[in-house]
Amino acid sequence: MAFGERLYSAVKQRGNPVLVGLDPRLAQLPGSLTDGVDPSDFVSAANAYRQFCCDVIDVVAPLVPAVKPQAAFFEQLGPAGMNALGAVIEHARRNQLIVILDGKRNDIGSTAKAYASAYLGESSPWKSDALTVSPYLGGDSLEPFVESCQSNDAGIFVLVKTSNPGGGHFQDVVDSDGKAIYQRVAEHVESLALATADSSGYGSVGSVVGATYPEQLVELRSAMPHAWILVPGFGAQGGSAESVAGAFKNDGAGAIVNSSRGIIFAHARTEYAQFGEQNWQRAVEAATRDMIEALTAVIA
Amino acid sequence: MAFGERLYSAVKQRGNPVLVGLDPRLAQLPGSLTDGVDPSDFVSAANAYRQFCCDVIDVVAPLVPAVKPQAAFFEQLGPAGMNALGAVIEHARRNQLIVILDGKRNDIGSTAKAYASAYLGESSPWKSDALTVSPYLGGDSLEPFVESCQSNDAGIFVLVKTSNPGGGHFQDVVDSDGKAIYQRVAEHVESLALATADSSGYGSVGSVVGATYPEQLVELRSAMPHAWILVPGFGAQGGSAESVAGAFKNDGAGAIVNSSRGIIFAHARTEYAQFGEQNWQRAVEAATRDMIEALTAVIA
Repeated sequence: MAFGERLYSAVKQRGNPVLVGLDPRLAQLPGSLTDGVDPSDFVSAANAYRQFCCDVIDVVAPLVPAVKPQAAFFEQLGPAGMNALGAVIEHARRNQLIVILDGKRNDIGSTAKAYASAYLGESSPWKSDALTVSPYLGGDSLEPFVESCQSNDAGIFVLVKTSNPGGGHFQDVVDSDGKAIYQRVAEHVESLALATADSSGYGSVGSVVGATYPEQLVELRSAMPHAWILVPGFGAQGGSAESVAGAFKNDGAGAIVNSSRGIIFAHARTEYAQFGEQNWQRAVEAATRDMIEALTAVIA
Repeated sequence: MAFGERLYSAVKQRGNPVLVGLDPRLAQLPGSLTDGVDPSDFVSAANAYRQFCCDVIDVVAPLVPAVKPQAAFFEQLGPAGMNALGAVIEHARRNQLIVILDGKRNDIGSTAKAYASAYLGESSPWKSDALTVSPYLGGDSLEPFVESCQSNDAGIFVLVKTSNPGGGHFQDVVDSDGKAIYQRVAEHVESLALATADSSGYGSVGSVVGATYPEQLVELRSAMPHAWILVPGFGAQGGSAESVAGAFKNDGAGAIVNSSRGIIFAHARTEYAQFGEQNWQRAVEAATRDMIEALTAVIA
C-alpha cells in the first residue's frame, strides 16, 4: 500500500492525527532511567535513550498513528546513538506505528539516492516509513527520494514553512511575481504529491508547515490538496489546537500534528505532576490523551 | 586555533587547496577490497568502506590539507556504516588532515544544537573539524552551530549555490530588490564569517558554491571576503581548474576544491588505467597530484 493511503488508514483507524516526537535528552529523562548513567559514556546514555523511547512507544502505540524520532539526538551519541535509533525504529514498527524519521536530509543526485536507500522502507537498514527532507537544493534533489518512495511504499515530508521564529528569513522572501519562496516550494510539493497520489487522494510526498504560522497553514492546506502536512510546533513551541485547525480538510484528514517534549516529558509538566516521576509513563499517556481530545475537538 | 586560521595554515602548509571527497560506493571499490563482501551484509560492506577510506587517507594525507567524508554513503549501511564513519574520521585526524563532514544537516533551536554537539570538535563523538549545513531554516538555525564553532575551533560550510543542474530552482529566485536567494544567503554567511574572523582574515563560517557556476563563484568570492568557499563539482561533475579559478583571492587562498570520484576511483579512469586495479592507490596518488598541479597552475 502506498504511503498516502498507509498514513490515511492509520489516522482513520486510531481516530486522531497525533504524531509523538521522540526527542530524547539525557537531562530530561525520568531519573529511574538515568540513574548511574555517565553523560560522557555514550553507550550507557544510548541505552537509556533506547529504553526511554521504547517505553514511550509502549504507551502511545495503542493510541496514535505515528511517531517521529529526531535523528539529531541519537547522532549526538555517536555510533552508539545510531544503534539505539535503529532499535527504536524497529520497536515502533513492531508495534504497528508509522515511523517518520526527522532527519531533514538532502543532497544532490546519487548522494540523495544514498539517503533514500538509507532511510526509506523495509529494505533499508533503518527501515523508517518516511523521512523529512530539506528543499534548498531544488527539485532535482527530490527525485531520487520520490522514486524510492514509490518502490518502497514510503514517504517524504519536505520542509515548506518551518516553525522557528526565524523560519521566514529565506522562506518568506517574495519574488517579483509576489510569490514567497515557501509558496514556490509548496507548489513543487503539490506537483509531486499529485503525481504520486493514491486511492486516499494523498501522495507519497508531504510537507512540513509549523503550527506557529496558523494563517499559512490555512493557505498551504488549500495550495497543496494532495499533500499530507506534518505540523510541528504544537505545545512547547506555542501552537494550540485552534492554531492547527486550518491544517485539516473538511473530512478531518490531511494533517498530522507533532508534540515531542509536551508528551514524552509530561512528567515534568505541572498538569501531570500528580503522577510523580516514578509513574512517568502514566503522565505520557495522560498528555497523549489530552492532546488527542484537544485536536479531535477542533477537527470535528 | 580558530577554524579559519586552521584551514588557512593547512592549505599554506600543503601548498594547495585540494579537498578529497570520501564517497565510498560498494560497486566502485577496488575488487581486492570487495572480494567476498555480500552487499546485503552491512557489517562486511562497512568494513570495506573503512578499509578503503583509510587506505585513501594514507595516500593523500601527505599531499592535501583536508578530506570530506560524505555522511550519506555511511548512513546507507546503517549503524555499521556509522561505526565505519567514526573510524574514518579518527584515522584522518590522526594523519593531520582537516575533516569536513558532508552531512548538510540543520534543524531548529535545540535540535540544531544537538547536531553541532554531535559533529563539531574534539569533544563531540564524531570529532569532525567542520560540517556542511543547509540554510533553508533561516539565520536563527545557524546560531547554535556558530556558537559551537567558536568554543570548539570548528567550522561550518553553509550551502549557498549548489553544483547540481537544478540548484537554481529555489536558490536563483530573485526578490523584488533584484536579489537572488543565494545572494541573500551569501550576505548572511558573510556577516557570520566577519563576526568570527580570526587572524587569517577568515571566519569559522564558510560557504558551499559549486564549480559548475563559475560566474557566481567570482561574484560570491567578492561578496563574502571573510568566508572560505568549499567548491564541489570539480571533475566528474564537469568543473575544471579554470572554472574554479574565480573562487580564490589574489593571494591564492580562500577556497578549497573538492574532488571525490575523480580521485578515489581514479583506477577506473582511462588516464590512470596503466596502474591496474591492484595498484589502485597509485592511481589515487597520481590523480591527486594531477589535480594539485592543475589547480596551482590557475591560482598562481
